[in-house]
Amino acid sequence: MKIILASGSPRRKELLKLIVPDFEILISGIDEKLEEGLTPQEQVTRLAYIKAKDVYERTNGDRIVIGADTVVTKNGKIYGKPKDRNDAKQMLKELIEGDKMHSIITGLCVIIYKDGKYKEYITSDEVKVFLNDMSDDEIKKWLDTGNAMDKAGAYGIQNEFCVFVDKIEGNYSTAVGLPTQKLYDSIKEFI
Amino acid sequence: MKIILASGSPRRKELLKLIVPDFEILISGIDEKLEEGLTPQEQVTRLAYIKAKDVYERTNGDRIVIGADTVVTKNGKIYGKPKDRNDAKQMLKELIEGDKMHSIITGLCVIIYKDGKYKEYITSDEVKVFLNDMSDDEIKKWLDTGNAMDKAGAYGIQNEFCVFVDKIEGNYSTAVGLPTQKLYDSIKEFI
Repeated sequence: MKIILASGSPRRKELLKLIVPDFEILISGIDEKLEEGLTPQEQVTRLAYIKAKDVYERTNGDRIVIGADTVVTKNGKIYGKPKDRNDAKQMLKELIEGDKMHSIITGLCVIIYKDGKYKEYITSDEVKVFLNDMSDDEIKKWLDTGNAMDKAGAYGIQNEFCVFVDKIEGNYSTAVGLPTQKLYDSIKEFI
Repeated sequence: MKIILASGSPRRKELLKLIVPDFEILISGIDEKLEEGLTPQEQVTRLAYIKAKDVYERTNGDRIVIGADTVVTKNGKIYGKPKDRNDAKQMLKELIEGDKMHSIITGLCVIIYKDGKYKEYITSDEVKVFLNDMSDDEIKKWLDTGNAMDKAGAYGIQNEFCVFVDKIEGNYSTAVGLPTQKLYDSIKEFI
C-alpha cells in the first residue's frame, strides 16, 4: 500500500519512519494560515485535513495520505511558527510566564483509498507541557541554535530545548508533531 | 572543562550531545547488578553513583563525570534489562497487564572536580508511563526489531515502540535514560 506523508517536517518524517519503512513525501501547496474564530483543536484538524486532501487529490491508486498540523496554545492564545526572531523571543517569554504550563495540540488526518473505498480519519491530540524558567541569556542561546523558527511556539521539545522542559502530560510523539499511536491504530490493518 | 559520560548507552550519548557538544565516554567496569532490599530509587542512585565514582577515580584533572542508571518498576517489582527473548516477552506481558501503568526511574550522579574542590550531585527522577494493549503478534514484531534486549523493561520509548505508548507523566529525557533538565541545572555554571 502506497503511503504519502503530506508534510515537509523532518520531525514528522522521522516519526513516520518508526511506523513504516517506506513512504513518499508530497508537500501540499495550500495556505497554512489559521482561520479566525476556531478553537485550537478545530484549527489543527482543519489544516491537517486540507493538507492531506490536497495531496490526496493530486495522487491516485490505492493509497494512504497523512496530514498533520501542530499549534501551541496558552490562555486561549494560539502560537504558530514565529514570524521573526523578536516574535520567537516574545512567544518564549509568554510561555514561561505564570504557571509555565501550555498545551501542544496536533491534528491528524489520514485518508485511505483502497479497492474503490474511501475513508477519512480525523482527530487531534493534546499534550500539557510544563516549562522551567529561562534567563534572557538562555533564550538568546536557544534562538542562536537556529532551531526555533520553523516550530510552533518557537521551540522543539526533542532538541536542545529539552533542558527547559520540566515535564509533560500526554503523548510525546504528539508534542513532536505526529501522534504516532493514533496514526498506527488508524493504519495498522493496511501495513 | 572536561566532561566524561560514564555510560555506553547510545541514548544517553545523544541526550548529552543536546547539552554539551564535546565530551568523552568512559564505561565503568563495575558490576551493574541490583542489590536486594533497596527501593527502585535507591537502586538507580546507587548504580549511577558507583558508575560515576569508578570513572572519576580512573581520571584526573578538572572534570565532570556523569553516571546514570534506569529501571522500570510496576507493583513493587523492578525490571532491568531482559536476560533473553522469553524474559523480554514476559516483561512486556506484565507491563500491559491491569492498568497498563508503570514507572521509569532514572538515577543521576554528577561528580564535579574543579580547582581542588570536589562536589557530588545525586538525584533520581520518575516518569509514569501508560501503555496500550499489544497483541502477541505486535510483541513478536517489536522483539524482532532487535531493540528490546539492551533496555530496562524490554522497550525503548523513543523508537518503534512509541506506537504502544498512550501517554506519559513526567520528563521524557528521564524516560529515555538521562534526566537532561536536572543534569543541565547541575552543570550549567561550568559549561
